[in-house]
Amino acid sequence: MSDTSAKDIWRWEAGRAPAQARDLLASEEPLEIRVDGRPVSVTMRTPGRDDELAVGFLLSEGLIVHRDQVRGVEPLTPRADCNLVNVTLAAGVRVSFEQLTRHVFASSSCGLCGKTTIDAVHRQFPPVAADVRIAAATLLGLPERLQLAQPAFDSTGGLHAAAVFDLAGEPVAVREDVGRHNAVDKVLGHGLLSGLLPFDRHVLLVSGRASFEILQKALAARIPIIAAVSAPSTLAVEFAEQSRQTLVGFLRGRRMNVYAGRERIEFNW
Amino acid sequence: MSDTSAKDIWRWEAGRAPAQARDLLASEEPLEIRVDGRPVSVTMRTPGRDDELAVGFLLSEGLIVHRDQVRGVEPLTPRADCNLVNVTLAAGVRVSFEQLTRHVFASSSCGLCGKTTIDAVHRQFPPVAADVRIAAATLLGLPERLQLAQPAFDSTGGLHAAAVFDLAGEPVAVREDVGRHNAVDKVLGHGLLSGLLPFDRHVLLVSGRASFEILQKALAARIPIIAAVSAPSTLAVEFAEQSRQTLVGFLRGRRMNVYAGRERIEFNW
Repeated sequence: MSDTSAKDIWRWEAGRAPAQARDLLASEEPLEIRVDGRPVSVTMRTPGRDDELAVGFLLSEGLIVHRDQVRGVEPLTPRADCNLVNVTLAAGVRVSFEQLTRHVFASSSCGLCGKTTIDAVHRQFPPVAADVRIAAATLLGLPERLQLAQPAFDSTGGLHAAAVFDLAGEPVAVREDVGRHNAVDKVLGHGLLSGLLPFDRHVLLVSGRASFEILQKALAARIPIIAAVSAPSTLAVEFAEQSRQTLVGFLRGRRMNVYAGRERIEFNW
Repeated sequence: MSDTSAKDIWRWEAGRAPAQARDLLASEEPLEIRVDGRPVSVTMRTPGRDDELAVGFLLSEGLIVHRDQVRGVEPLTPRADCNLVNVTLAAGVRVSFEQLTRHVFASSSCGLCGKTTIDAVHRQFPPVAADVRIAAATLLGLPERLQLAQPAFDSTGGLHAAAVFDLAGEPVAVREDVGRHNAVDKVLGHGLLSGLLPFDRHVLLVSGRASFEILQKALAARIPIIAAVSAPSTLAVEFAEQSRQTLVGFLRGRRMNVYAGRERIEFNW
């Protein structure tokens, strides 16, 4: 596994025809961390240096403080697509599992991979079927509308934003938060509390990058089109494809990259 | 509580004397979410719209799908600094708590606040005492060194980076990941596995924003100086102050903002 992955996408710039291009994506895959065989965490990470990630996590959580406490760190790979690393403690070392601040949400004999993670989400939330279309020109206008509705970012530079728009580009809700996933949850919560769900004729726009988690939340609200101002991860693209969602990235100025579900975008500029 | 908070900081630009300034920070505080009184999640969020955040989270997790399932959402505020919201379900509604993918790591009768969260960390990791200093000019050079050592970001735009440098500005470890916290864990894990800890004469640089979590991880490795290319949150600054860490933000070009621990920086440009 590598920290990046190449992908065929559609690149579009206003006034031109969409063109196929090759894009390099940051890899995102789940990793299950175990200590002496006991699952302690699942995190979405970029593959590579998993041994460092595992012991760094245990250090951050206060479970270990010194190299001598670790006998070894081994990937457990019964299959090539398994993402599981096991930290073996030195003889006599005891750790306090109770003080872990993050917990395992799923565990299997094999560890997790992108595919099993997507399958698990689809058992809760089936793929979208929405037969909707949006004009590329409307998509291009969304980042500016987001910025206009996001006063705190301009003043702090420290807040993420998420917004839901209708297919005409009218904002339904714009929310800010230090956590991008929280900004999305707030937009979805507004939809639920206001009786606006499902958002199945809507677009979700996020201010930064698009990760697996953002796509999963969009699916929960039945959102068929997701756009990000910055880059998507490999798992976000894979998730969008399997969930029949449209995923647009690098939506900036007069251009965008289309990573999945191109058929929902009308390039009639 | 507000989504931003003003703070007196030191602003410095190469060739000038440091000057006091007023900066606006994005608020970060923990929130405990309960369902019918049962704790289901603690998340670091920007205060405001907590009702939306709570039900949006429950929607994302597949626990509720419709407004009719919710009787009400109430903040529980036995004290003003408590961050606790309770979702009351409508009569007869049952939810499946087992499918929650995120879990509560701490719970109290009052909920959590920034102060109790910092106190809890300090019981594991006491404040740093390192009597070290770094030249402002050395700090200014770090972002470029990080960029040179971060090949994948340039190609994908989708990876965060974290790096540890010594006080002369020499890189000890540079790691990339889709998750900023993972990039930091990898750097710390490298330190532990290579027998380089504690990093008590070192600087941690992160490519984006500095949150509470980043500061907490730095403290676990005893790092006295933390720098971010972008903005810190309120709780990151509060944490740095209480942990006697130096926190620098907006470290770009020929300038920086110093949010805490100014005494460790030599402005002798």
